[in-house]
Amino acid sequence: MSQKIRWGILGLGKIAHKFASDLQLSETAILQGVASRSIEKASDFATTYHAKKAFSSYEALVKDDEIDIVYIATPHALHFENTMLCLQHKKAVLCEKPLGINLTEVQQMIAKAKAQNVFFMEAIWTRFMPSFQKVHELLNENAIGEIISIRADFGFQTPFQPESRLFNKKLGGGSLLDIGLYPIFLSLSVLGMPSNIDASARFTETGVDSFCAMLFDYENGQKAVLESTFEVDTPTEAYIFGTKGVIKLHRRFHEANTVSLIKNNEETVFELPHAGIGYIHEIEAVNSCMLAGETENPKLPLEFSLQLMTIIDKVKSKIGLQYIV
Amino acid sequence: MSQKIRWGILGLGKIAHKFASDLQLSETAILQGVASRSIEKASDFATTYHAKKAFSSYEALVKDDEIDIVYIATPHALHFENTMLCLQHKKAVLCEKPLGINLTEVQQMIAKAKAQNVFFMEAIWTRFMPSFQKVHELLNENAIGEIISIRADFGFQTPFQPESRLFNKKLGGGSLLDIGLYPIFLSLSVLGMPSNIDASARFTETGVDSFCAMLFDYENGQKAVLESTFEVDTPTEAYIFGTKGVIKLHRRFHEANTVSLIKNNEETVFELPHAGIGYIHEIEAVNSCMLAGETENPKLPLEFSLQLMTIIDKVKSKIGLQYIV
Repeated sequence: MSQKIRWGILGLGKIAHKFASDLQLSETAILQGVASRSIEKASDFATTYHAKKAFSSYEALVKDDEIDIVYIATPHALHFENTMLCLQHKKAVLCEKPLGINLTEVQQMIAKAKAQNVFFMEAIWTRFMPSFQKVHELLNENAIGEIISIRADFGFQTPFQPESRLFNKKLGGGSLLDIGLYPIFLSLSVLGMPSNIDASARFTETGVDSFCAMLFDYENGQKAVLESTFEVDTPTEAYIFGTKGVIKLHRRFHEANTVSLIKNNEETVFELPHAGIGYIHEIEAVNSCMLAGETENPKLPLEFSLQLMTIIDKVKSKIGLQYIV
Repeated sequence: MSQKIRWGILGLGKIAHKFASDLQLSETAILQGVASRSIEKASDFATTYHAKKAFSSYEALVKDDEIDIVYIATPHALHFENTMLCLQHKKAVLCEKPLGINLTEVQQMIAKAKAQNVFFMEAIWTRFMPSFQKVHELLNENAIGEIISIRADFGFQTPFQPESRLFNKKLGGGSLLDIGLYPIFLSLSVLGMPSNIDASARFTETGVDSFCAMLFDYENGQKAVLESTFEVDTPTEAYIFGTKGVIKLHRRFHEANTVSLIKNNEETVFELPHAGIGYIHEIEAVNSCMLAGETENPKLPLEFSLQLMTIIDKVKSKIGLQYIV
């Protein structure tokens, strides 16, 4: 491995563009190669983001010896197949969230990464945002006392397009997997595993959820009230309510630049802008692990991703959502 | 009945003070008499709010021929007994919400009011607020298209005091009955009766809920996500999310002076301040009914209160809350 981490990107959609843009901000990263089923798409992408190579197949990319880690940016339903392909070739992987579309997939992916002894992580960029670090700091300082409950929503209105990634069941569509994951991520980060899950959803005619409301109970009585939707623009804010105060992650909470600490009717506002589009923080965290020869990131270990998908699978079961693979 | 409605107030706590203050703003109301178990309290109250008579017993008040309607402002658990006493004496009644602590009480109260052919209403002041009228107008104009979901919370932090009205089970304490009623009121007003109810609560050592989260499903797929708590200060806002826009009732939504209509990322703000403390709108609505000889208010008919308590009883059943009467 070189002193710089040589990245490959597999799947060149919208998020790959954003990721590649931020990758250029890193002094420890090189965009070595990009792969798409379309060579024109790959070549254009490579030119735009100064990638050294453009590949017209994922196989070609993973066989390239000069790539250290692959960022998987394909639709959810392909994450398993694409990640396994990388892992088989002993490539480290940063896979877009969700890691897979069910727990079985995630378990297999993690087992494979461990067997191959390569770095593997779910690309939950929120975890590495300055705003989210601040939340952890405040919680560690016991700034809001004992946590009573969490509320978080993530909703935007988007037209129903049966073939789009968001609504196509074959691609792992639905609000839960795509954006509901963020409120669940927050609750899992702060409160751990719930002891009971209630959930209720609205479905599109393509059989995926366009709205999902969740109510989590914890053994010590804590609660989480979470929502995701493609149907309406919701505030997309998050609150952590404690006995001595409230932490608010401002809109949109998953990429927040502002955190408030509200105590005794006084609001302390922390401005914590992320660099670039916001992916750079996650990229630097991965680069550090790679340079140190670590196979997991302590801030987002694989056990966390296992727990996250365990919760998601329970929600899916509650609302009657199943992806046939 | 005189040209002015002659009011009596039964139970002279905090809310009675606010109500009496607003009563003085009405040109069609006279505060005829006030009753407390303590004659000092009644006399002081009568002096402050220019009531003609002070009674040291509820019985004395309801037997006074010069009182047309009684406002019941005692703790929840006494609403049934106090209202029945008034109705037996053919007094009209405006009873603080909730009407009773369970559906059986409410059914009996309504049956009695109908049998006596007197005016009877639950004092849900929000229903008569200018802000809430605006919400109805906007919905009637189809300003936000088809409603997808509702979200509302009502939470404030108050120290646990076992004997206080809020926490004392014998007085009908708990967040659900006291403030959870408002989010439920909103959902019932806008979406009607839910087809399924999930709920989850935290309990105090006095056996009442200090936190209650509710998730309502409706037959056409609409949802309501509602919360109430005495444990933490929550935003206390309400949102009605529709296919074409969002209506927001600003903090605190049950007494909102501001309503926003948000469409295509543009927010139209309506400033709709209530008069007085906000009770005057409800008072005028009742006076109008009384002067017209009506026994129910069309904006808040008894059927609504029955439905409201039907929902509350279902939530109570879900969270395992029961008041022994």
